[in-house]
Amino acid sequence: MTIREAARALRARECSSRELTREALDRINKLNPALNAFITVIEESALARALGMDEGLSRGHDRGPLHGIPVALKDVFSTRGVRTTCGSRIFAEYVPDHDAAVVEKLEAAGAVIVGKTNLHELAYGVTSDNPHYGAVHNPWAPERVAGGSSGGSAAAVAAGMVFMAMGSDTGGSIRIPASFCGTVGLKPAYGRVSRYGVLPLDFSLDHMGPLARSARDAALALEAIAGHDPRDPSSSRRPVERYLPEQEVSIRNMRIGLPERFYLENADPEVAEAVRRMAAIAEGLGARVVQVRLPDVAAINAIGRVILLVEAAAILERDLARRMDFGEDVRALLEQGRLIPATDYVNAQRLRRLKQQEFASSWTEVDCLFTPTTPTSAPRLGAQKVTIGGKAEDLRPAVTSFTRAFNVLGLPALSMPCGLDSQGLPMGLQIVGKPFAEATVLRIAAALEDATGLSHQAPPPIG
Amino acid sequence: MTIREAARALRARECSSRELTREALDRINKLNPALNAFITVIEESALARALGMDEGLSRGHDRGPLHGIPVALKDVFSTRGVRTTCGSRIFAEYVPDHDAAVVEKLEAAGAVIVGKTNLHELAYGVTSDNPHYGAVHNPWAPERVAGGSSGGSAAAVAAGMVFMAMGSDTGGSIRIPASFCGTVGLKPAYGRVSRYGVLPLDFSLDHMGPLARSARDAALALEAIAGHDPRDPSSSRRPVERYLPEQEVSIRNMRIGLPERFYLENADPEVAEAVRRMAAIAEGLGARVVQVRLPDVAAINAIGRVILLVEAAAILERDLARRMDFGEDVRALLEQGRLIPATDYVNAQRLRRLKQQEFASSWTEVDCLFTPTTPTSAPRLGAQKVTIGGKAEDLRPAVTSFTRAFNVLGLPALSMPCGLDSQGLPMGLQIVGKPFAEATVLRIAAALEDATGLSHQAPPPIG
Repeated sequence: MTIREAARALRARECSSRELTREALDRINKLNPALNAFITVIEESALARALGMDEGLSRGHDRGPLHGIPVALKDVFSTRGVRTTCGSRIFAEYVPDHDAAVVEKLEAAGAVIVGKTNLHELAYGVTSDNPHYGAVHNPWAPERVAGGSSGGSAAAVAAGMVFMAMGSDTGGSIRIPASFCGTVGLKPAYGRVSRYGVLPLDFSLDHMGPLARSARDAALALEAIAGHDPRDPSSSRRPVERYLPEQEVSIRNMRIGLPERFYLENADPEVAEAVRRMAAIAEGLGARVVQVRLPDVAAINAIGRVILLVEAAAILERDLARRMDFGEDVRALLEQGRLIPATDYVNAQRLRRLKQQEFASSWTEVDCLFTPTTPTSAPRLGAQKVTIGGKAEDLRPAVTSFTRAFNVLGLPALSMPCGLDSQGLPMGLQIVGKPFAEATVLRIAAALEDATGLSHQAPPPIG
Repeated sequence: MTIREAARALRARECSSRELTREALDRINKLNPALNAFITVIEESALARALGMDEGLSRGHDRGPLHGIPVALKDVFSTRGVRTTCGSRIFAEYVPDHDAAVVEKLEAAGAVIVGKTNLHELAYGVTSDNPHYGAVHNPWAPERVAGGSSGGSAAAVAAGMVFMAMGSDTGGSIRIPASFCGTVGLKPAYGRVSRYGVLPLDFSLDHMGPLARSARDAALALEAIAGHDPRDPSSSRRPVERYLPEQEVSIRNMRIGLPERFYLENADPEVAEAVRRMAAIAEGLGARVVQVRLPDVAAINAIGRVILLVEAAAILERDLARRMDFGEDVRALLEQGRLIPATDYVNAQRLRRLKQQEFASSWTEVDCLFTPTTPTSAPRLGAQKVTIGGKAEDLRPAVTSFTRAFNVLGLPALSMPCGLDSQGLPMGLQIVGKPFAEATVLRIAAALEDATGLSHQAPPPIG
């Protein structure tokens, strides 16, 4: 069931928020021992909140499509009175005295928050194999990673524990787990969603966005959380659009760029084939598929790595100096960040502006890009390498290679399922839009969903 | 004669632009051997341009108050077809193929550019003792520095060579030479004047602004050069105000903050006394003088030094690697910049935002600040130390200590003469305004000028 379907059922009195929330909690209680998707579940307050939402609706106080819908938050969003660990030992006992802006907005929209999801330590990695809170397991295959860093959010949505879960994305952390778990994941444009009340990993790369069961549900969530916030200096003043694609979606004459170079050529052949298939489906719907040559994406990725290494190390420098308890991988990244000279960082930021300008010219030829989200489906837990077209590559750079550039460029990007590979694991299609063109990205995704039904695919029964 | 007076005389046909320009060139030819204020004089094109401006005016094409007025440019502003050295050997033969935005705007306003002024090498220093183009000499005492880095612009205005000269200011480079040479110098708010076509020294600290003989002339110049420019990513979209203070200026009930701590206590007693005297004059005009405690200015200066060292080194890194010919002081600063870790730079930028917020609360108590521009009058050429209240201090940090923070904060700040010290040398009053409150700063300066006539004081005859 999607949010749209649940919202209709709630208003038709076919179910109550309390029932939906009870079901969500039951499913969490049943599946979390196997998936470890949640760090904290707030059963009591969620049920009380759901009751309040039911009462409100019965009195005609309708807060909109999220009213009464059970959702979850990656454990980087501050929640007043509820522990917010950031997946780290540093914040193991941290109970914020304020809500993140996204939390305020979701509550204003009537959503029922049922808990805080597990993640890669400090949102700094792609496996969500957390040394302090345990690994998140992929609902499609528990011996595989859920992806990261928003792995718990993706697993919770994919396993039907919640309708929607919020994630954060600094180099792919919403889209990668969406790809691995077969959900929709949307990284909006830089500045579109307030970051107030979220532990920063990187000032200039962090984005907040939803993981959901369909593009239309992601659009509903974005409408609820988007908008200017003076408390976040990077927050944009652009007005919020209506992101929810209309019932019937047309993508006739839309120009889709399909970059062979770097993207299709570096993906596993199965994944590349699945993306080509989605492009062909779009063509069948009246879109035009255009071969496009992008600026040097590997260079943009390199810029992103320098900026992330430095900014994350700057944020966590004091904790590192205090010899706080970090996992091995995160500690290594932080140590590496401290060794970069400031001039390299400044020149990376300069080059970033140039690449942004260079990339802008791509948008005269196409309206969006289709790429794989990740070069393969989910690797096994504990693996250091991934196999792409028979070749073993280092996991972290390989897994982020298709997503990181769009954090550097600040462009909206969505991952949606594009079928299962020969191992029965989900593959992800990434749709990238022009600056602030979330509406276009969501429209295309909705059209593809309508044509294929792919976003509604559920994993096999767990446990 | 000020621009306002010359503009009136031009329209009354009491003089022509050609005569004004001829006089300016004669004065440059006579005094430049002693002062070394100009690197390049463009006599022929200036006279042709002046003739054109005269013809335009006689046909009723009046471009406004700068129409036909001889002015100069610090040699960092790109001029199409005219060598632009930046005071460096690197650019000794550089002839740009485009004009800086400020040059376009001045030409549109009818100004007659007579030449390019000398400066501290690469605008990176406060003495304008240039190893490649020779030292600029102070018109008040040729054995003393003119200040820097816009030393040539200040000397040219003070010695009556031009009515106005453009400068750039990264840590005080407009205000310091204005203070040492007894002129008005205005650093507008960050983003107020386009930096397109100016060699950057520091992306986040550079400001462009005029040096002139009066506050009203500085206001005229700012009106001509201000405004949004899409070619400069830091350019503000705020509308340009009318900066020229009305004929009669009232500063009744204006609240002037006079910071004893850090500013008056660290200035030479003579200079502190002169600033207090200006505050008393303002009080006599109906303003209220308020004691104010500012956030830690020494910390803000330290932030500014880290940012400048890094950004300047990032910009010039390749030239440094190629072992280009730099002066000893500039080379040392560039080498120093390369040794700073990126995390220190990022944390300096973070701290900067916090200090900006902290400083903002000062503006609830006062409308502007009065401080000395420099702790002393102009030191001797070749000196490594300045004597402040009998104590010797390192020249560079001492001379920039009162100005640098307002580059870090991006606030508008103006230096105006506030009398001569016991050595017969000019002292400078710095007036600092709220974000984008250039109009307020200029109004106060004009009121003080009207009351004291101090900005019109000319140096003793030279040579």
